[in-house]
Amino acid sequence: MSDPKSTAYQELIDTWREASLLGSCGAVLGWDERTFMPPAAAAHRAAQTALLARLGHGMVTSQRVGELLENLHEAPLGEAETANVREMRRVHDRAVKMPSSLVEELARVTSEAQGIWQQAKEGNDFPKFQPWLEKILELKRQEASCVGYAGSPYDALVDEFEPGATAKSIRALFSDLAKQLNPLVAAITQRMPKSKVDLSRREFPVAIQEKLCRDIAAAIGFDFNAGRLDTTAHPFCTGIGPGDCRILTRYHANRPLESFFGTLHEAGHGLYEQGLPKEHFGTPLGVAASFGVHESQSRLWENQVGRSRDFWDGYGPKFQAAFAPVIDDVSVEDLWLSTNLVRPSLIRIDADEVTYNLQIILRFELEVALMEGQLKVADLPGAWNDRFKQLFGLVVPSDAKGCLQDIHWSFGGIGYFPTYTLGNLLSAQFLETATTDLPGLFDDIRRGQFARLTDWLRTNIHCHGQRYRPDELCARVTGRPLSSEPFLKYVRTKFAAWCK
Amino acid sequence: MSDPKSTAYQELIDTWREASLLGSCGAVLGWDERTFMPPAAAAHRAAQTALLARLGHGMVTSQRVGELLENLHEAPLGEAETANVREMRRVHDRAVKMPSSLVEELARVTSEAQGIWQQAKEGNDFPKFQPWLEKILELKRQEASCVGYAGSPYDALVDEFEPGATAKSIRALFSDLAKQLNPLVAAITQRMPKSKVDLSRREFPVAIQEKLCRDIAAAIGFDFNAGRLDTTAHPFCTGIGPGDCRILTRYHANRPLESFFGTLHEAGHGLYEQGLPKEHFGTPLGVAASFGVHESQSRLWENQVGRSRDFWDGYGPKFQAAFAPVIDDVSVEDLWLSTNLVRPSLIRIDADEVTYNLQIILRFELEVALMEGQLKVADLPGAWNDRFKQLFGLVVPSDAKGCLQDIHWSFGGIGYFPTYTLGNLLSAQFLETATTDLPGLFDDIRRGQFARLTDWLRTNIHCHGQRYRPDELCARVTGRPLSSEPFLKYVRTKFAAWCK
Repeated sequence: MSDPKSTAYQELIDTWREASLLGSCGAVLGWDERTFMPPAAAAHRAAQTALLARLGHGMVTSQRVGELLENLHEAPLGEAETANVREMRRVHDRAVKMPSSLVEELARVTSEAQGIWQQAKEGNDFPKFQPWLEKILELKRQEASCVGYAGSPYDALVDEFEPGATAKSIRALFSDLAKQLNPLVAAITQRMPKSKVDLSRREFPVAIQEKLCRDIAAAIGFDFNAGRLDTTAHPFCTGIGPGDCRILTRYHANRPLESFFGTLHEAGHGLYEQGLPKEHFGTPLGVAASFGVHESQSRLWENQVGRSRDFWDGYGPKFQAAFAPVIDDVSVEDLWLSTNLVRPSLIRIDADEVTYNLQIILRFELEVALMEGQLKVADLPGAWNDRFKQLFGLVVPSDAKGCLQDIHWSFGGIGYFPTYTLGNLLSAQFLETATTDLPGLFDDIRRGQFARLTDWLRTNIHCHGQRYRPDELCARVTGRPLSSEPFLKYVRTKFAAWCK
Repeated sequence: MSDPKSTAYQELIDTWREASLLGSCGAVLGWDERTFMPPAAAAHRAAQTALLARLGHGMVTSQRVGELLENLHEAPLGEAETANVREMRRVHDRAVKMPSSLVEELARVTSEAQGIWQQAKEGNDFPKFQPWLEKILELKRQEASCVGYAGSPYDALVDEFEPGATAKSIRALFSDLAKQLNPLVAAITQRMPKSKVDLSRREFPVAIQEKLCRDIAAAIGFDFNAGRLDTTAHPFCTGIGPGDCRILTRYHANRPLESFFGTLHEAGHGLYEQGLPKEHFGTPLGVAASFGVHESQSRLWENQVGRSRDFWDGYGPKFQAAFAPVIDDVSVEDLWLSTNLVRPSLIRIDADEVTYNLQIILRFELEVALMEGQLKVADLPGAWNDRFKQLFGLVVPSDAKGCLQDIHWSFGGIGYFPTYTLGNLLSAQFLETATTDLPGLFDDIRRGQFARLTDWLRTNIHCHGQRYRPDELCARVTGRPLSSEPFLKYVRTKFAAWCK
């Protein structure tokens, strides 16, 4: 090919790769900032990061990129090229629609707001945070009107995290889910026994926890030759580029399951990053499909696999042996129970895999109402507490344990929350298909053999990058649109003994 | 100020700061590459680093920067601004004189040559490396003729490491030094007793070594709030930017002094980086004066202070106590002796502080002869071995332990070696002045009190950045030009008992 279309395409790809390469430099700096950076370096690091972001932003929003995208309009490109152009156009169009004054104002306000939120949470002082959240919502409404939307201004925001999703499409999924989850949670809560053991009163040496985390990450396929596992305050996974994906966890001597499931979660993200096609690095085909699809990969390993009875039947004795004699007296049944207790609780990040989704539904409803102006920020605590009582049957004792508990709104991440539950639903729907495609899969899992599942995820999901939009990917992989049915079926099966 | 000159100056500074900020992103990536980067990330890291270098290079070589420098020609600027313009012009002029084809060819050839050198050294196979060194010298001669020079083509190269230095100026210093060192080394070698103990047969727990290294670095003033100490294969120090300087060392259970002096050395570099004026970051006034001046700071702490008898009289008992009972039977005298044995030896990096300079003189003579064409690469091993015999009285048993021992030529670092000895000479001349300025300094050192010396270095050297050129700085600080006399006097005093 050397026609003008393919020349334009190549120039576009080259520019995009360069911007991505700069972005990946920023990813190294971001990882370093949260692991090893000396405290006094914070201001300089902010300047470094801002420069890389500005240069990268300049590349993807350049007039030349706009012209190239225009040239390629309706060009007869192959499937891969068409997908790349579609996604580059999405990013470019969104970025050029945002005035730089708004971008800067958002960066400035949200940077400061995160500190204010932290103080407000520590002091249980919602009025302190209120004007900042009001300002953020005002700016996000401006963002939505710059970007444009058909239905709700919320659509313009959620699209950045989950391309194609809208307030309406998510509401449809979530309202069905909430309706069916409520009686299930009530039943399981009433009947499911607590584990007889309280692990938090025992000591689990961090060095042993670390070895188990490393081993389980490697066992599910995380490649330590092309990645790392380190320690940080707020665990995450960062895919820096080909051959470089880093996951982070944290250890507490009394909470061995926190680091274990945290690592499984991040390693699930890591497998996705390591499974993206290296030859497409720097183009949309080398990027994960969406936040929701990314979360499906972490939740699949953490919950669907890692909290399954089959997994613990095989792994439990190894876990006991590693910490011997600390939990020699604990049965595998009790270990499994202690990883699976379903109970309404106040804090999202401590929630079990079932009630977690009610936490998300609550936040989604409230952030849509805030964005659409039906709910005033001043009324947020009341609205939160009322809805919390309805969904969980619990009285929220303080805003710190209520509407101030999460950082997301303070950094402007409105539209982010639903991707957690989309990830949970997707993980169940994906695994349902994988279980059909791979007979005896849970026998493998009981034996600690994960290769068939990892390969299936690589072949069906990871290797596509953004070739398909999330809804398309789901339909291609599972044969039908995303629904809450597979997740509900999973819950009903797993907790069958207690939910009838 | 809002006249055109000051506007031009400000634009120049802004551009320079941006290029420096990009460079400092590259410094984070470079540190990560040598500490924590996963092996499979190497190719991607090379692409990231090359992009940052290319973008930064584009900024400082831009036509606009050329125009701004031109506008500022003979402008009535203050002292600080004049120094900044002088150094920016030096860097800009050198960079624009280099055709990008030559820059790329040098990068390509030296990148590959480092691997070839490694193999040649391992296989003691000079002919394998010979064509690569020939190619590198040819390219470095092209570089020299692009950059321009008055005397030797070597001048154009050494200027990059030591602004203002020439083959002639260095030869004058070094030939005097060699002449006086030779009889001194012969005398000390003959009479100085070896330490009665062989530390290498004992075990020194790495965790204890690490604590001592951290403590001594902090004791001399290295700020761990604005820096780190980590482990790597080839120790170094990198000043990333304000609030972020990282030093690296390595530990062997049988060589506690290697990590100790290695850390003192790197912390000396680190103090310089941490002492550069933060407000001038990104401009020459915020950059170290030269490689030689940098090395003077590391050698001053490692050798002049760290290997002094006063230091060990105070520190020795603490060192013993930390490792008790491993060296309870070793006297402070023996500890001091074991850190100070002067003996001709084959390998530069293992050499004592006296014969080390003969190693450098040898390399300097040979690299000048190679650059000027008086010595053919094919004849290098013979020339090395002959001169080695003259200087050290030793027969070189193999090229691996001779002319193949150092990496520098393979990465194109011709003109780098002399800065090591310039650093040694400078450190002695600086400390001689400091000792006059600070009565009782070595009493402080014996008591483990280093603050007065650190402050003196900050005030007299660190805070100036590139305000003064290296020779100017030396004259300002010590009242006279650099000479080998203070270093020789230091050697004669320290080893007085054995060199008369």
